[in-house]
Amino acid sequence: MIPPEHPVTDKDTGRLEAFSDGVFSIAMTLLVLELKVPPVAANSTPAQLASQLLRQWPSYLAFTTSFFTILIMWVNHHGIFRLVRRTDSTLLFANGFLLLLVTAVPFPTALVAAYLRTPAATTACEVYGFTFVLISLGYALLLHATRRNNGRLLLPHALGQINHRLRSCYLIGTPLYLLSTLAAPIAPWLTIAICTVLWLYWAIPRNELDGAFRA
Amino acid sequence: MIPPEHPVTDKDTGRLEAFSDGVFSIAMTLLVLELKVPPVAANSTPAQLASQLLRQWPSYLAFTTSFFTILIMWVNHHGIFRLVRRTDSTLLFANGFLLLLVTAVPFPTALVAAYLRTPAATTACEVYGFTFVLISLGYALLLHATRRNNGRLLLPHALGQINHRLRSCYLIGTPLYLLSTLAAPIAPWLTIAICTVLWLYWAIPRNELDGAFRA
Amino acid sequence: MIPPEHPVTDKDTGRLEAFSDGVFSIAMTLLVLELKVPPVAANSTPAQLASQLLRQWPSYLAFTTSFFTILIMWVNHHGIFRLVRRTDSTLLFANGFLLLLVTAVPFPTALVAAYLRTPAATTACEVYGFTFVLISLGYALLLHATRRNNGRLLLPHALGQINHRLRSCYLIGTPLYLLSTLAAPIAPWLTIAICTVLWLYWAIPRNELDGAFRA
Amino acid sequence: MIPPEHPVTDKDTGRLEAFSDGVFSIAMTLLVLELKVPPVAANSTPAQLASQLLRQWPSYLAFTTSFFTILIMWVNHHGIFRLVRRTDSTLLFANGFLLLLVTAVPFPTALVAAYLRTPAATTACEVYGFTFVLISLGYALLLHATRRNNGRLLLPHALGQINHRLRSCYLIGTPLYLLSTLAAPIAPWLTIAICTVLWLYWAIPRNELDGAFRA
Repeated sequence: MIPPEHPVTDKDTGRLEAFSDGVFSIAMTLLVLELKVPPVAANSTPAQLASQLLRQWPSYLAFTTSFFTILIMWVNHHGIFRLVRRTDSTLLFANGFLLLLVTAVPFPTALVAAYLRTPAATTACEVYGFTFVLISLGYALLLHATRRNNGRLLLPHALGQINHRLRSCYLIGTPLYLLSTLAAPIAPWLTIAICTVLWLYWAIPRNELDGAFRA
Repeated sequence: MIPPEHPVTDKDTGRLEAFSDGVFSIAMTLLVLELKVPPVAANSTPAQLASQLLRQWPSYLAFTTSFFTILIMWVNHHGIFRLVRRTDSTLLFANGFLLLLVTAVPFPTALVAAYLRTPAATTACEVYGFTFVLISLGYALLLHATRRNNGRLLLPHALGQINHRLRSCYLIGTPLYLLSTLAAPIAPWLTIAICTVLWLYWAIPRNELDGAFRA
Repeated sequence: MIPPEHPVTDKDTGRLEAFSDGVFSIAMTLLVLELKVPPVAANSTPAQLASQLLRQWPSYLAFTTSFFTILIMWVNHHGIFRLVRRTDSTLLFANGFLLLLVTAVPFPTALVAAYLRTPAATTACEVYGFTFVLISLGYALLLHATRRNNGRLLLPHALGQINHRLRSCYLIGTPLYLLSTLAAPIAPWLTIAICTVLWLYWAIPRNELDGAFRA
Repeated sequence: MIPPEHPVTDKDTGRLEAFSDGVFSIAMTLLVLELKVPPVAANSTPAQLASQLLRQWPSYLAFTTSFFTILIMWVNHHGIFRLVRRTDSTLLFANGFLLLLVTAVPFPTALVAAYLRTPAATTACEVYGFTFVLISLGYALLLHATRRNNGRLLLPHALGQINHRLRSCYLIGTPLYLLSTLAAPIAPWLTIAICTVLWLYWAIPRNELDGAFRA
């Protein structure tokens, strides 16, 4: 819990957060470039345009899924940095590694949306699941970087929450994403199902989970 | 009215706003990528270039319209968050849903610009009108998220303004955008006319409307 | 002079500036997408690649010119908003109109770079010069918006600087950019020369010019 | 005029940093647009998709390398501006020149990734090395701009660190990048090796190097 009376000097994390926000927001927005207006013919009918638009559904699906995936990652990033008071080089690079993975998310998502109904869905889902194995390790790395040196970079009383998030990465995120990757050759839809359930799980506010976890 | 003496600790909404600003500004800027320099021929005449540039008018129209549409949405977003003191997870996700719609705006706009003079204008205008039905519901969702828990997230005295904006969504925005969507099969230009009048309406500062509404 | 005891509540312009910075920085960066890696052939020689890269010089020129043009506009925008204490709706929209023009800058710049050595340079330079007529009017509009209501939105003592910048727009910017547009049919290079000299002029810090102007 | 004794509320560098962060984050993210989903065929097999994805390795390499290159440049930019209290026009333009080079980084990086296994690697590596010669001069220019006027723009006691960074530019960065450029016709891999070693060097926190340098 963050004591409300704590005097925060946030210049330091301020710039890290602004920079990260830039990366998150661009990564979320860029996929809209993939939504293409169908080529215009002077006599195209309403029904033709409607069917051309509907045929683009993998693009819409990929756009929406990537957007919410990165949004949830941003909410969790925001949740972690509310606990951080200062930065050092290790934290800047751990954060940078996570941001690299954030910007990459639209690629495996678009891959799955495009190949989901072909026999190559197996490969697409392996890439997708493995991306999130890397991302859960990226969060773990970031969390380790925040709690180095006896929590000198953290706000007082924040270490417990950091440790709880780290346990979520190692006990829930990494193994289940690994399972989803290994499940792809058996049933590509299983990869998607596991990842979707996990997104819903990460979307639940951590402090509410805290209570459930301790109980 | 925001009492000027109120001590705001805005770290929380600060990052939400910075992140949202990133999404708004990228969405506004990306469409410029659609403005293409006509292919150069060594002997192209001034008149040829002029006519090639003029033939691109749907791109200019789409760029300008999207830009101002998103600008007005940003002004209203800004107006709402001036009343908000804190965020929680629900607000972050409601805001995220609205941002998804913001980034999507260039697509239906470009669609209408491209198809306005073809028989398929009907379909394009249906998509356009329906996008704004969703956007008005996105604003309603955001407003509901800000006033949960007896307005605990709001600045003192802000609840009245939030409620007034919510009434504008439900009594003006949603029904008129729905009407504009249903009007498309009858007359595509009617969709555009209704939406344009509404943009002008949203562009008027809310506090001036407050007075008119109460009178 | 900004009295140090003045209690600035800059939340207001803070968000306007962050949003504007987003638009400026994206507009400056997007043109790099036009720099294309020449298509790879397995046996392409160093000399071939070098000549392919050199042939792309209009892209490099357009990228660099747009970048510095928008940078100078940003520096001036920054200079104006250092004088502004608060925003209102009129200012938000005047700023939005200027930002629209900012994002459009890469287009006429690329047009001139591409057509400069063809007979169509006339048209390209007319578009280029006219863009900056609009931009100088955009700045004038922004400056008028900041000084409405007896300078209520400005910091104390800032009105003089705003008026000086407004005079620069009306007496120097607008007429000379208009002249550069009209010069295009006579000599396209004259348009470029006038605009370049003006960029150098806008790049000089205003407060240094203040002295020269008053003298 | 702002009196020089004015106690600075860091609004000033705040906006410069936010603007720079926007440019850094966009430059880092844009390259993801180069990661293309391979064209879908209804009967493409998992093995085919896997080999198509693997064949794109130069894109992945370019994306990752550019990302970390710009991240390290951001960390160093961040490190410099932690020492800066105020800005002036010279600093704004020196910073703008560095940002121009930042946004250009993805281009030579993609060039090297694409041509590394062709005879044209020589040319690609010359361009690559020379870009970083320019970047080391860009940092030197920025550092000179921060320490003008007896360090009036710097925080107290910061001049020593600025001078140390300047020595790193002139004694290590510029000559070694120049060497890497000149090495390209002999062995393109040597260019890459020198630049990579230098990135690792720049990634080490400056204050740790300070100690080593003085010893």
